[in-house]
Amino acid sequence: MDLLKELDGRNVSELGGELHRFAADLYPICRSITGNGIRQTLKMIQNRIPLQIFEVPTGTPVFDWRVPKEWNIRDAYIKAPDGKRVVDFQQCNLHVMNYSTPVHATLPLNEIRPHLSTIPEQPDWIPYRTSYYKEDWGFCLSHNQMLQLDDGDYEVCIDSTLEEGHLTYGECYFAGRSSDEVLISCHACHPSLANDNLSGLAVSTFLARHLSGRDLRYSYRFLFIPGTIGAITWLAQNRKAVGNIRHGLVLSGIGDVGGFHYKKSRRGNAEIDRAVACVLRDCGESSEILDFSPYGYDERQYCSPGFNLPVGCLMRSVWGTFPEYHTSADNLDFIQPASLAGSLHACLGIVDVLENNRRYVNQNPYCEPQLGKRNLYRATGGDSIGTEINARLWVLSLSDGDHSLLDIAERSKIPFFTISEAARLLCDASLLSPLT
Amino acid sequence: MDLLKELDGRNVSELGGELHRFAADLYPICRSITGNGIRQTLKMIQNRIPLQIFEVPTGTPVFDWRVPKEWNIRDAYIKAPDGKRVVDFQQCNLHVMNYSTPVHATLPLNEIRPHLSTIPEQPDWIPYRTSYYKEDWGFCLSHNQMLQLDDGDYEVCIDSTLEEGHLTYGECYFAGRSSDEVLISCHACHPSLANDNLSGLAVSTFLARHLSGRDLRYSYRFLFIPGTIGAITWLAQNRKAVGNIRHGLVLSGIGDVGGFHYKKSRRGNAEIDRAVACVLRDCGESSEILDFSPYGYDERQYCSPGFNLPVGCLMRSVWGTFPEYHTSADNLDFIQPASLAGSLHACLGIVDVLENNRRYVNQNPYCEPQLGKRNLYRATGGDSIGTEINARLWVLSLSDGDHSLLDIAERSKIPFFTISEAARLLCDASLLSPLT
Amino acid sequence: MDLLKELDGRNVSELGGELHRFAADLYPICRSITGNGIRQTLKMIQNRIPLQIFEVPTGTPVFDWRVPKEWNIRDAYIKAPDGKRVVDFQQCNLHVMNYSTPVHATLPLNEIRPHLSTIPEQPDWIPYRTSYYKEDWGFCLSHNQMLQLDDGDYEVCIDSTLEEGHLTYGECYFAGRSSDEVLISCHACHPSLANDNLSGLAVSTFLARHLSGRDLRYSYRFLFIPGTIGAITWLAQNRKAVGNIRHGLVLSGIGDVGGFHYKKSRRGNAEIDRAVACVLRDCGESSEILDFSPYGYDERQYCSPGFNLPVGCLMRSVWGTFPEYHTSADNLDFIQPASLAGSLHACLGIVDVLENNRRYVNQNPYCEPQLGKRNLYRATGGDSIGTEINARLWVLSLSDGDHSLLDIAERSKIPFFTISEAARLLCDASLLSPLT
Repeated sequence: MDLLKELDGRNVSELGGELHRFAADLYPICRSITGNGIRQTLKMIQNRIPLQIFEVPTGTPVFDWRVPKEWNIRDAYIKAPDGKRVVDFQQCNLHVMNYSTPVHATLPLNEIRPHLSTIPEQPDWIPYRTSYYKEDWGFCLSHNQMLQLDDGDYEVCIDSTLEEGHLTYGECYFAGRSSDEVLISCHACHPSLANDNLSGLAVSTFLARHLSGRDLRYSYRFLFIPGTIGAITWLAQNRKAVGNIRHGLVLSGIGDVGGFHYKKSRRGNAEIDRAVACVLRDCGESSEILDFSPYGYDERQYCSPGFNLPVGCLMRSVWGTFPEYHTSADNLDFIQPASLAGSLHACLGIVDVLENNRRYVNQNPYCEPQLGKRNLYRATGGDSIGTEINARLWVLSLSDGDHSLLDIAERSKIPFFTISEAARLLCDASLLSPLT
Repeated sequence: MDLLKELDGRNVSELGGELHRFAADLYPICRSITGNGIRQTLKMIQNRIPLQIFEVPTGTPVFDWRVPKEWNIRDAYIKAPDGKRVVDFQQCNLHVMNYSTPVHATLPLNEIRPHLSTIPEQPDWIPYRTSYYKEDWGFCLSHNQMLQLDDGDYEVCIDSTLEEGHLTYGECYFAGRSSDEVLISCHACHPSLANDNLSGLAVSTFLARHLSGRDLRYSYRFLFIPGTIGAITWLAQNRKAVGNIRHGLVLSGIGDVGGFHYKKSRRGNAEIDRAVACVLRDCGESSEILDFSPYGYDERQYCSPGFNLPVGCLMRSVWGTFPEYHTSADNLDFIQPASLAGSLHACLGIVDVLENNRRYVNQNPYCEPQLGKRNLYRATGGDSIGTEINARLWVLSLSDGDHSLLDIAERSKIPFFTISEAARLLCDASLLSPLT
Repeated sequence: MDLLKELDGRNVSELGGELHRFAADLYPICRSITGNGIRQTLKMIQNRIPLQIFEVPTGTPVFDWRVPKEWNIRDAYIKAPDGKRVVDFQQCNLHVMNYSTPVHATLPLNEIRPHLSTIPEQPDWIPYRTSYYKEDWGFCLSHNQMLQLDDGDYEVCIDSTLEEGHLTYGECYFAGRSSDEVLISCHACHPSLANDNLSGLAVSTFLARHLSGRDLRYSYRFLFIPGTIGAITWLAQNRKAVGNIRHGLVLSGIGDVGGFHYKKSRRGNAEIDRAVACVLRDCGESSEILDFSPYGYDERQYCSPGFNLPVGCLMRSVWGTFPEYHTSADNLDFIQPASLAGSLHACLGIVDVLENNRRYVNQNPYCEPQLGKRNLYRATGGDSIGTEINARLWVLSLSDGDHSLLDIAERSKIPFFTISEAARLLCDASLLSPLT
C-alpha cells in the first residue's frame, strides 16, 4: 500500500516529465543488440539505479544460439554525384540498417536500390530495419527522399565494424525477505525509437528506483537486455536464478497514448496474469487482456516450454498494430509524460498486489462478527453501505483459507487496494489472521 | 408434481387476494427486532400454521453478539407550539426511528433538527430508519412536513421502553421422510413496510400451509425471525439442526411487480441455486440470477464461512434499487395480489424440483427403446416431435446414473415438470428405474 | 495432407458435377427401410466402392426392436370416376405413404380423404409420409391436386407387399494401420428426396472412393443403412466392431446451399467434435456448432447411453428448419454441385485432422531455437511474420507433450493444415519429435 500511496502523493505531471526527459536523454544513442550504444545506455541507467553490467563474449553458446559478433558504427551516408550527403546517419541513426556490414564504394543508383528500404504508404517516415543474422548492408530512408534521387553514381559508406567482442546487458537486483523473485525485463537494443522501447527502459528504471531500499516480500530482478538474444543469453547463463522466478513482466511500448494491453503468460492463469488484470480493471484507463501467443517480445523466451515461466507482457498500443511502429515516427512526440507516469503507476499497483496478496482466515466464521461495536460499520440502519464496509464483508465472507485477497478482489469487483486495506483493518481488530 | 397441479387448479386472483389480505392484516403493526410487534405478528401467523414461538432473554450471547434489550413503544409525537401534533406515531409507525430511546422534552426546533430524517428527493415519503445498537432517538417525516415547521419550541415525546426482555422468533417444522431439511427463512422485524417484508411473511405462511400434512421427501423448517440478530440467534441456538439443512431460501421483497431476482448461495452451484434458476427460467416472468455477495438479507448469516449453507435469496425487485425501498411508499399498493401469487407459485415450483430431483437409470441403454409400441411416440413419421416426446428422449439419453432430472432439464432447456413427468411415464413403462 | 492437396488439385465444379450426377442416378428409386429400393441403391454404390451387402431376416430381434417385414411396391394410383389417374405413383414415388399396406377398392371421395396428406401452406408440394410400425395405407399429394378432386367414387390401388423378407444394408471397410475405426454412417432409406439423403450417400461414396487404397492411420467403416432400425440392427449385430470406433460422423442433408451445421456427439468434447469445429471454422463457409440433442438422425442410436460413441452429425441446413424438408421440393434442384463438393472437401478436412492429430515434443524447449539458420524464419527484421512462421512458433511453444496439433490449431486460431505442415517441417529439421 505504501508503495502506491507515496506515488499518489507525487505530482503526476512532474513525474511524467522526469520519465520523458530520461527517455529523451537516451533517444539519440544508436543502440543495437551489441556494441557501444547499449553499453552507453546501460551506463546512463546505472547513474540512477544500482545496475550490474555483464559482458558475454562473441561465440559463447547459448542454447541453440551463439552470441553474435559485436557491431559498432561511427558514420554512414550516401553522397550524391555533387558530393552532398543525401542520406546521413548523423541526422538519424535509423538511416542505416542495423548490423550493416561495412561498405565504401561508388555505385550507380540502380545497384544501390536493392539496398534501400522505404515505406511508400508513409512517404515521410524512415523505416527501422535490422539484419542481425544475415551479413548484409542497407540504408533506410523516407520514400520522398528516395523519389528525389536522380540516376547517377553515388558514394555509399557505412563505417561500421562487425567483429569479435561482447554482448552487454544490465541487471539490477534487490533482495527481499524471500528469495522468490519478481522479474522485470525490457529490451534495450533499439536505436532512436521512443515507445519501442525507451518507454520500457524509463518506466523500469523508475520502478527500480522506487522499490530501492524498501523492505519487500519478494526479491526483484530488473533486466535491461538486447531483445531475443539477450533474453536467451541471460536464461542460458542464469539457470539457477530462473528457478526463483515466481512472477514476471516484460515492459515494452508503454509510453504512447493508447490504452493498456496485457498479454498473458503461456500459463494463462498465473498469479501475475490475474494481478495485472485486476489492476488494469480498476486503473481508470481502457485496457484489454490478450491471450498468450508465441510471437512478441522476450516473453517468447521466458515462456518457452522448457521454462514456461509466469511472465506476461505489459504494453499500451500493441506492436505492429499502429503505423508508427518501427519507423522514425516512433519519436519523442509519440510518447507522453502522462502515459509514462500512468504506466509506472500501473506497475506499482501490480507490485502492490504481488506484495500483499495473501490468504487470511476469518477468526469469527460463524455468522458475521458485530462490526458496529468495533466502529467498522455504519451507526444508523436503513440505507446502503459504502465500498469500504462492503470490502470488509467480502474479506470476512471469503477468508476461509481457500481464497486469497486477489480472489476476493476479482469476485467482489472491488479494487485490490480497498480489499487489502479492509484486511489490514480486520487484522487490527483481531477478526482476521494471515494464513502463514 | 401434485404440489403444483393443485395450485394450478386454484383461482390465481383469488389466491393473490388472500395473500394480499394477510399482508394487509399485518401491515399496521409496529414491528421491531424485539418486542410486542413481532410477538403479535407471530401470533397471527400461528393462526394459520403450526408455529412454535421462542423467546430468548436479553443478554444471551449468540456468537459475537448478544441478544439486545427489548424495545416497546406506545406513542410518540412532536407537538407544535400551538399544541397540535405535527408528527404523529399513531398515524404512521415509521415516524419514529425504530429502537428510539424514550424522550420527553420541549426544545427549540434547531435542537430537534439533528434528530429528524427526511428524503428531499421524495418530499412526500417518510423514510424508515433504525438505531438498534447505538442508543439514540429520532423522528422520520416527509420532507414537505419538515418544510412547514416554523421556528419555535416543540414538545417531543417518545413513549418507549428499552429494557431487559426477550427476542422472539417463530418456527414451523414439518417432518418429511428424511431428516434432511429445506430451510425457508424470512425476516419479520420491519414495521409498516409491505414488500419488505410482509410479502415474504405472507408467501412463506401460505407455502407452509400448502405443504402441511403432505408426505414429503424432505423435512421443511420455516423461520419467521428478526433480521440479522434473529438469524444469528437461531443459528447459535440450533447448531444441531443446522447440520440437516440441505437446501435453503430466504424470501424477501417478493410482492412488487418487478421480475424475479435470485441471489445465489455463497457456494454458487448448490442444488438450490440450480433449482431456482431452472424454475425461474420457465416461470413465464422475467428473472435474473445474481452472484452471491455478502451484503443482503439473512443469507449473510447462513452463508457465513463457518456455516456456508446452501441458502440463496429469492426476491423480486432488489433492495436498494427502487426508490420506494425503506420508505412509506413501500405500502400495500406497492405489492400486488398477482405478484404474491406468482411468488408462491415459483416457491412451490422450487419445492417440486427439490422433491423430485433424482437420478434414474435407463433400463434399455443400447439404442433407443421402441417407444411406439408402448404408445409413447407419434404414429406417423415425417414431421417433428413435440416437447413431451422430446422430454422422453432426453430422459432416456441422459439417465445413465450420472445425470439428475435437474441436469436434464438444464441441458435440454425443457421445463423441469415436463422432464419429471416424462420420467414418471418411462418408469411406468419399465424403461427407467430410479437410482436408490 | 495429401488427401486434401489431391482434392484441391481437382476441378471443383467437375467434382461437384459428378456428385450431383450420382445423386441424380439414385433419385428415381423408391427406397424404404427394407425392400428392393434400398437393395438397388446399394448395388449402384457397390459399382463405385467395395461394398459388402448384408441381409437380416424379418423378425430378427435387435435390442428392444425386431427387424420389420419387407415392403415392396410396384404401382399405386387413385383413379377418378372417368378412369384417369389423378394421383400416380409412377410420376412420383412420394405419392404413396411409405410402407402402405396393399389396397384396391373403389370408394367415395369422403372415405378416401382420411388417407390423404397435403401441405396447405405449400400447395404445390407433395409431402413425404411414412407408417413403418402401424399398418396403414395412404396417399400424399399436393394441396392443389386435392382441391381439384370432385366428389364421386374413386378407385384406389396400392400394389404393395408387406411380407417376411429382409432388412438390407451395406458396409465398406478399409483396414488402416490401426484397428481403431472411424465410422461414417448415412441413411439410405428415403425415396425421391435429394438432400435427405442422396446428398449424404453421394458424399459418403466419394469419400470412401477417395480413401480407398491409401495407407491410413485409422480403419474406416462406411455404413449405408436404413434410418433408425438400420442403425439399431447394425449395432445389435456388430457389438465387437463397436468397441473399435474412435470417431464417427453421420452425414445427412449436406447438399443444399445452406451453411454447415454440426451437431456434437453426446460427449460434447470428443475429438471428432473438436476436429469438425476446427475444420468448419476455417472452411470459408458459414457454419454453426450445435449441442447434442437426442432427437435427429442415427447419432441417436450411436450416442444412446449404453454406447455413448463419439459420433456427431454433419449437415448443411438442419432438418425441419426449412420448408422443403420432407417434401417433393427436396428435389435435384435443391442440391447444388458446389455444395456437394464443399461437403466432400470438409469431410476430407476432418479425416485429415483425425489422421494427423498427434502430440509432438519440442526437442529444443529452452528458449526458441534459431529458426533463421535453418531457413525457417524471415531474413530481415523489422516487420511482422506470416502465418506459416507463426504456426511454427505455436507448434514449438505448445509441443510439450500435453498439447496435440488440434489443441494448437484451436488455441492459435490457425488452420489445422497449416499447423500440421509446420509440424512436418519442424520434424524434418529435427526440432520436433512425435510422441509415440
